[in-house]
Amino acid sequence: MRFSIQKTALVQAVQIVSKAVAVRTTKQVLSGILLEVRDAEIVVTAYDMELGIQTRITATDDNQLKIEQPGSIVLPARYFSEVIRKLPDTIITMHVANNYMTEISTASVQFHLHGIDAEEFPKLPSFVGVDKLQLQSDVLANLIRTTAFATANTEVRPVLTGIDIKCQDNQLVFIATDGLRLATHHVELSDAPTWEAVIPGKSLLELTKILPSGDAGVDLYLTKSHSLFITGDTRFYTRLIDGTYPDTSRIIPSSHKTELRVAGDEMLGAIDRAALIARDRDNHMVRIEVEDKVMTVSSNSPEIGNVSETVGIEQKDGENVQIAFNGRYVLDALRALDATSLTIRFNGATQAFVIEKTGDKSVLQLISPVLWR
Amino acid sequence: MRFSIQKTALVQAVQIVSKAVAVRTTKQVLSGILLEVRDAEIVVTAYDMELGIQTRITATDDNQLKIEQPGSIVLPARYFSEVIRKLPDTIITMHVANNYMTEISTASVQFHLHGIDAEEFPKLPSFVGVDKLQLQSDVLANLIRTTAFATANTEVRPVLTGIDIKCQDNQLVFIATDGLRLATHHVELSDAPTWEAVIPGKSLLELTKILPSGDAGVDLYLTKSHSLFITGDTRFYTRLIDGTYPDTSRIIPSSHKTELRVAGDEMLGAIDRAALIARDRDNHMVRIEVEDKVMTVSSNSPEIGNVSETVGIEQKDGENVQIAFNGRYVLDALRALDATSLTIRFNGATQAFVIEKTGDKSVLQLISPVLWR
Repeated sequence: MRFSIQKTALVQAVQIVSKAVAVRTTKQVLSGILLEVRDAEIVVTAYDMELGIQTRITATDDNQLKIEQPGSIVLPARYFSEVIRKLPDTIITMHVANNYMTEISTASVQFHLHGIDAEEFPKLPSFVGVDKLQLQSDVLANLIRTTAFATANTEVRPVLTGIDIKCQDNQLVFIATDGLRLATHHVELSDAPTWEAVIPGKSLLELTKILPSGDAGVDLYLTKSHSLFITGDTRFYTRLIDGTYPDTSRIIPSSHKTELRVAGDEMLGAIDRAALIARDRDNHMVRIEVEDKVMTVSSNSPEIGNVSETVGIEQKDGENVQIAFNGRYVLDALRALDATSLTIRFNGATQAFVIEKTGDKSVLQLISPVLWR
Repeated sequence: MRFSIQKTALVQAVQIVSKAVAVRTTKQVLSGILLEVRDAEIVVTAYDMELGIQTRITATDDNQLKIEQPGSIVLPARYFSEVIRKLPDTIITMHVANNYMTEISTASVQFHLHGIDAEEFPKLPSFVGVDKLQLQSDVLANLIRTTAFATANTEVRPVLTGIDIKCQDNQLVFIATDGLRLATHHVELSDAPTWEAVIPGKSLLELTKILPSGDAGVDLYLTKSHSLFITGDTRFYTRLIDGTYPDTSRIIPSSHKTELRVAGDEMLGAIDRAALIARDRDNHMVRIEVEDKVMTVSSNSPEIGNVSETVGIEQKDGENVQIAFNGRYVLDALRALDATSLTIRFNGATQAFVIEKTGDKSVLQLISPVLWR
């Protein structure tokens, strides 16, 4: 293996895959980055057996890639990425000598890093002959961003740590719930295959960090055990979560007793302040009271103090309501909605309530109440 | 106590003093911020018995301070600072009601925080009738920045965790050493009193964060137990460290066997790369070999690999030299010097060596060698 390349191009490729490097592992090869130098490209891969990221570099005027000899090596990710970052901003040459010892050099600097036989690196899952689903990068990022926060953090019920992704009748739906809140977001597609999978929420959040901004295309592939997202030269592999995702369709209320319209920033500020005082309580309990045209948001803590504020109601239908809830959950939901105007629908103090962007049914946030005490 | 003020002004004052709030303490009042509202100003104080910071706010057109009733209260720092930061950017009103319950409100929001009787807050040290030493803010910041990193991190010998500050014959000298390296920086003053004190390095690093940039004046005061820095409306108190600072004057070599001049950025890059490979070794051992007009910087780790690079020598006097040292120490020293050209003076492989900015004797970095192995 021997090639030379502009430093920055290699740094970028290593940066892209680094999120899939195993952090705590007893299998040393998984904490490495695989470089495969072929006739006309370099393939850079990291794979911790849960998440795999692979990107490729082909020669351009900018990166000045010159391949002299194909071959492959696994290098310790932490050192390899720091070594190349700390090199002067110039052409660097890499080649593997005896015993997997790898030289990384510029005109004045010579690094040698102990590598590992590329044969030891695990194979990425195979996706031959699988239907693909096509999406825009910003649409996919938004589907993830508006739902992933609502997945469960604990492994008590593993399937809830994933986002349930369903494609049916040309509608793609993302659903996440930890049992106390639920977020769902759907978009219309054309010519989409029918499929369903539960993909780890954490992996999808990592995916958003490497998705290009704007309307670049992303292809999704699915097998029984893995999903694959391809955008540009980068491939993102995740394992799926086993188990049946709960049927959440029934818990989304179809009617309501109260419907309010409020300004998004005012509501966000009020919940943010109330959640601050509620922070030390078990369930971050924040209260809303709607009486006629006035909404009061409040919380109190015996040790810290209390807060109470009024939020203007732009429009109200139905009855007055008093309800308590986890302020942190509503804060997450409001941040995900990022709306100038919010529509909130209640069914009394003991039923879950719905928050949506006014005039937009594509994203729905459902929050369980906390009982009064 | 009752006053109103533009939010931002209060946020800034609390931000300034917050570094002196006790983080882990069994005495609750020390984790609070003292507000003293007088006839024409608000005095904001935090004091963890080691470090004390006090700043004052007087009425301006910008801050719109209006004092209605003097008084004082201690509020829990963590909540108080977050509460005011999260308030809308408008005029906020504060007043103390019964039982030290403090209301912080705007037109729509009402917070109440449990306060503590201001009588419980410790008194800051007194500095009546003490000589002052006058400095420019940027000069003081630079004196600290170029020396504080060389103080000891452990309390094995407490006096070494401080910077020894001496003023004699109109020369102000800062000295820091952990026993294996030493940094010293001096400036000339006029009309300066004679004094010496050992001030905790960590406290002085905190001071640099609140010193204004540029040539604003700073007044230094000293008693047997404390120092005080006053700049603008802010006062910064630190306790002194007891004990006799070692006499370091003899360990700075007055002659040398080798003198080199090298480019600062090239040297910094080479040491940075070598220190990376040396990172997992006990003493971060990096080697320099000077042979004729070529300097080679190298390090190796049995587990990771090795690095070797050449650094151009612009000028050399004296004999060749081979020496090993803690790469992390030299990296700190080079970053503190921040020089385009460096002069390095060696006295063989077993003596400490000196690094200075070429043509500038005011800052000196001395590094102990590591013996070959």
